[in-house]
Amino acid sequence: MQACAIHAAKDLRLIDIQTASTLQEHEVRVRYATGGICGSDIHYYHEGRVGAFAVQEPLILGHEIAGTVSEIGSAVTGLKVGQPVAINPNLPCLKCDYCLAGQTNLCQEMVFFGSAAVMPHIQGGFREELVVPQRQCVGLPDGFDTAIAAFAEPLAICLHAVNRADNLLHKSLLITGCGPIGCLAIMAARLAGVRHITATDVEDTVLDMALKLGADEVINIRTDAARLEKYESGRGHFDAAIECSGNPLALRTCLNAVRPRGTIVQTGMMPPGDTPILVNKMLSKELSMKGTFRFHEEFDLAVDLLVNQRLDVSSLLTGVYAFSDADAAFTAATDRSKHMKIQLRFDA
Amino acid sequence: MQACAIHAAKDLRLIDIQTASTLQEHEVRVRYATGGICGSDIHYYHEGRVGAFAVQEPLILGHEIAGTVSEIGSAVTGLKVGQPVAINPNLPCLKCDYCLAGQTNLCQEMVFFGSAAVMPHIQGGFREELVVPQRQCVGLPDGFDTAIAAFAEPLAICLHAVNRADNLLHKSLLITGCGPIGCLAIMAARLAGVRHITATDVEDTVLDMALKLGADEVINIRTDAARLEKYESGRGHFDAAIECSGNPLALRTCLNAVRPRGTIVQTGMMPPGDTPILVNKMLSKELSMKGTFRFHEEFDLAVDLLVNQRLDVSSLLTGVYAFSDADAAFTAATDRSKHMKIQLRFDA
Amino acid sequence: MQACAIHAAKDLRLIDIQTASTLQEHEVRVRYATGGICGSDIHYYHEGRVGAFAVQEPLILGHEIAGTVSEIGSAVTGLKVGQPVAINPNLPCLKCDYCLAGQTNLCQEMVFFGSAAVMPHIQGGFREELVVPQRQCVGLPDGFDTAIAAFAEPLAICLHAVNRADNLLHKSLLITGCGPIGCLAIMAARLAGVRHITATDVEDTVLDMALKLGADEVINIRTDAARLEKYESGRGHFDAAIECSGNPLALRTCLNAVRPRGTIVQTGMMPPGDTPILVNKMLSKELSMKGTFRFHEEFDLAVDLLVNQRLDVSSLLTGVYAFSDADAAFTAATDRSKHMKIQLRFDA
Amino acid sequence: MQACAIHAAKDLRLIDIQTASTLQEHEVRVRYATGGICGSDIHYYHEGRVGAFAVQEPLILGHEIAGTVSEIGSAVTGLKVGQPVAINPNLPCLKCDYCLAGQTNLCQEMVFFGSAAVMPHIQGGFREELVVPQRQCVGLPDGFDTAIAAFAEPLAICLHAVNRADNLLHKSLLITGCGPIGCLAIMAARLAGVRHITATDVEDTVLDMALKLGADEVINIRTDAARLEKYESGRGHFDAAIECSGNPLALRTCLNAVRPRGTIVQTGMMPPGDTPILVNKMLSKELSMKGTFRFHEEFDLAVDLLVNQRLDVSSLLTGVYAFSDADAAFTAATDRSKHMKIQLRFDA
Repeated sequence: MQACAIHAAKDLRLIDIQTASTLQEHEVRVRYATGGICGSDIHYYHEGRVGAFAVQEPLILGHEIAGTVSEIGSAVTGLKVGQPVAINPNLPCLKCDYCLAGQTNLCQEMVFFGSAAVMPHIQGGFREELVVPQRQCVGLPDGFDTAIAAFAEPLAICLHAVNRADNLLHKSLLITGCGPIGCLAIMAARLAGVRHITATDVEDTVLDMALKLGADEVINIRTDAARLEKYESGRGHFDAAIECSGNPLALRTCLNAVRPRGTIVQTGMMPPGDTPILVNKMLSKELSMKGTFRFHEEFDLAVDLLVNQRLDVSSLLTGVYAFSDADAAFTAATDRSKHMKIQLRFDA
Repeated sequence: MQACAIHAAKDLRLIDIQTASTLQEHEVRVRYATGGICGSDIHYYHEGRVGAFAVQEPLILGHEIAGTVSEIGSAVTGLKVGQPVAINPNLPCLKCDYCLAGQTNLCQEMVFFGSAAVMPHIQGGFREELVVPQRQCVGLPDGFDTAIAAFAEPLAICLHAVNRADNLLHKSLLITGCGPIGCLAIMAARLAGVRHITATDVEDTVLDMALKLGADEVINIRTDAARLEKYESGRGHFDAAIECSGNPLALRTCLNAVRPRGTIVQTGMMPPGDTPILVNKMLSKELSMKGTFRFHEEFDLAVDLLVNQRLDVSSLLTGVYAFSDADAAFTAATDRSKHMKIQLRFDA
Repeated sequence: MQACAIHAAKDLRLIDIQTASTLQEHEVRVRYATGGICGSDIHYYHEGRVGAFAVQEPLILGHEIAGTVSEIGSAVTGLKVGQPVAINPNLPCLKCDYCLAGQTNLCQEMVFFGSAAVMPHIQGGFREELVVPQRQCVGLPDGFDTAIAAFAEPLAICLHAVNRADNLLHKSLLITGCGPIGCLAIMAARLAGVRHITATDVEDTVLDMALKLGADEVINIRTDAARLEKYESGRGHFDAAIECSGNPLALRTCLNAVRPRGTIVQTGMMPPGDTPILVNKMLSKELSMKGTFRFHEEFDLAVDLLVNQRLDVSSLLTGVYAFSDADAAFTAATDRSKHMKIQLRFDA
Repeated sequence: MQACAIHAAKDLRLIDIQTASTLQEHEVRVRYATGGICGSDIHYYHEGRVGAFAVQEPLILGHEIAGTVSEIGSAVTGLKVGQPVAINPNLPCLKCDYCLAGQTNLCQEMVFFGSAAVMPHIQGGFREELVVPQRQCVGLPDGFDTAIAAFAEPLAICLHAVNRADNLLHKSLLITGCGPIGCLAIMAARLAGVRHITATDVEDTVLDMALKLGADEVINIRTDAARLEKYESGRGHFDAAIECSGNPLALRTCLNAVRPRGTIVQTGMMPPGDTPILVNKMLSKELSMKGTFRFHEEFDLAVDLLVNQRLDVSSLLTGVYAFSDADAAFTAATDRSKHMKIQLRFDA
């Protein structure tokens, strides 16, 4: 069996791995079909680390995974061999205080695919075959396109971010950063009944995509920053903002452009260390700022939305590469002027 | 008539003023009895400015005011000459979108006592006599102590801060900064059914007061910082925090010591400009941070609580000075090692 | 000028009326274009009363009104002669506690079109010409179809009902009663991101409409009640219900079919007096039940949604009649097997 | 070993029982010390049933239990032999959807002490000795009075009811019914920062207790109903109500006397079948009505409040009887004119 593992910055290799030869009763064996490359995968690829977490042993990347069931444990019900499945990369303990409060994303003992946060590392999903507990598999209809299913994970992140923003119904919304997360956040917010979306980025390509996927207005803040002025003047304009860029300047824009009593949901991870913030603006405008972290039941919702075609994410997929072309795939995924989401197939 | 006006940093003078000789129908003439010195008054005194707002003409300070009705307009009901009253320093327009949403503290046309934010400045309440619309007066029982009533304004700020913290019922709470605002926040939080309060400061004097007024535990972070470690380790401990110091290090403590999904209410104004914040901690712990600004209906509540003796604020009053001793009063108010709240009377 | 007034049960007449010859500075004169017949209009027509409110003098019916501006007062801005407008039938005082809390629908001094609740009655909008304060007019784009605009009022009711249901995002919803309100509630709930809607009624015609407008499943409880059993068994199934029929049996269905911790929003007015309720079911399942009453800012939202074509209500309009045919119009409006919304034009 | 079991209406007997001779690793053996008689115990005693649940085999009553640890399983930590403990009568599964959402009181597989809801019945706590999983025991300080600890269960019910009422901070509250639950609700609401409490009942004795425990005003609705009129007139007065009597007339009072947008929490179980409700009042006033059912984490909170003496419940205890006097105890518990809470000890 093969897998795509990072060894150090820019050192990505196909390695041979073993998967368990026999299944536990609640386990499912899944043949890998499709995996999306995410921002954290890109960080591992370019820097050999994500924030404080450095690669200390070969780490199989990947947590946006869909595949096909190839074997089921004796106690597994509701799944069958040959069925396509979306893989939830979260495995919460279901026993800690957070899990028992319905906040599984904050589980104290979370196991999450493809992470160097602990040693030994938790291996990810870019691998020919995975063995997972049934509760990490969400069954899909026969023949469902795994390329679509692999969007369930980033979509779940965005559904959760929207849930964190209290009730966006009929609100005006600013979204800063229109990469895959920003674009999926636009779709999730539209679905939540938001009234008007203004989206910002520095690349026209992604702004065009944002407009296509549901933004009412887009602003290139590199070439057209003056158009933000009317929103940042006085005490601001938007009811809420979802910051998806991880750029401190974008967060500053949110703090300026959100109106009194508005909410800012911070989705994008900032550069390590402190981020300078206009805290006094939070006082005088009584703003709320909320962090958001992964998702919980939103993964099932994401699959449901994709299966029932309430959202069409297909245009976000701009490139598909084979494992053997993984370097090219990661290079493409890094080029925001040309690409949104890049997926890896075993032999594309 | 005399008033106590700041002319520049450290230049505080008794000046002669005129008040309207005849009242409008809804106006009330109030003879000044007692006024508390607040943090912003102290800033004006020492620096001639508060943040961006510099004194450009003589500014009468004071917005924690109680007095006695000396004349009422023809349409005033429910107040009588000789009755003590607490003065609400906020005069919202009641017509803008914020006022019509019940958020009068965010009124777009707010008139607030003793502020250099606009030119001409809005004059404050350290004056022998005030004329105000009836809706700025809350009537008190005959003989009620105006020294207690003058606490209604800072108490209202703290009641509002507690209201901003969602529901604190049975929660564990961290309060950073135990000056008058921190101590009143402790009392307000206790009243809201909080389960356990840990309070921090750098002065033992104020920490003793905090303990007396309802904190369960106090920590001097200058001499005993190690005791915070158990709270800051891992993912934190407290359900919520109210930051009352305006010190960026205290906010850092809050971000570390509040547990996942907890809330931080920022009450203390930070030094001008950006404050460095651990934004990524807000992400991984899904923290909420909320600004709080003055108060709205909490002013009436504060008076109600004081009148019905549900809270006893008397021990916070550590000094009373005459207008003619205003420099001494401001000097005392600045000395946190000895004083909590200093009040000015016309001729104490 | 003519108007369509009810004099007693079944006694509907065209009468001559006068409108003010000169406008106050903030008033607008509107030439009537289109008015929808609502459930309360039908009650007045058939019974001469709505609940406790009996017609005591001729009452001009109608509160789902759109028209064209024919004259504007001297202080009116943003509207021009010839412009189509939707008329908000609510005129709250903007001064009482409820208005100042943003709950204008609960205004203590509300003036509402076409109501016998007070004497003299408040006259409604089925009249050749209306004079209203500008704040009751929402301007529409040139040429906008007033037949669509007249749906703003019932749509606003449904947007408000959905707002009352906390956050319906990704919830499963039961809607009982699929007349115009039920169907518009389906559209409003869909817009709010609801995951799955089951709708019930006793008429196949309206259920077909419900399916077309966004229900995922419809059940005729007269001919197919057994299909509800799976939802009512055990502790129920739906996250929330919006009861739009005003039928006590439908409310019983909601109490049975909503799962523990679910919410029921009661929109339909019940027959006068007490309604028998399974209160103990509310206990053991910790249900919430909420009344909903008219709307506030949702009127502007409704117009916005119609103008921006986020919702298409056109198929709900099943009949248009002239004032001179008002009896036929009311008869048609009563026949749920054939009609959804009937509108009156002056000379259709 | 002996236990106090109901066999049929009025047929209460001391029976011999066996408890497990060896403990599972997480189990604790508790020697019974004190048990309170609750409303449902009284129903079983007088009617041989509670609502739909009839006694079909001997049922040991009692779920307000405190005792002393006499043996601990091999894996038990944090408890020691001889330590007093409060017993939580709820044993949720911690695996169903409700448990995993933090709503253990709604657990689909709940095991609850002393209930004829299932067959075989779940035996209760009026027994010389109990063996329970550790998670049903909350340890108390050495020497803590078990008579106080036995109030943890009814207090937890009231803390939960208050939690269900959204935020009661600074609200005006109506409490209908001042038996032990009503009185504990008064204390819980006071603790939550409620501003003013009016309490009603038909017995002066319990109203006196209500006043003593924190009500600001009490009204005997049998002898002094006219005093409610000012609250029921117009659109009502109170921000919220907690209905603790289970009397339909009291619920009617709540619906009349709560102001628009207010909340009613229904705590008292109504007589079986439908309860007539003024549903249309819920519409026009946009009321919310919520059921409440037992408690979850509030049990630990209740113990914490009792241990830390934030509440003093001792005056509610009006009688203590031996098991051998159980008939006398149940007779006393039924006499609201003389008694609040009656407790059974093994040999009082």
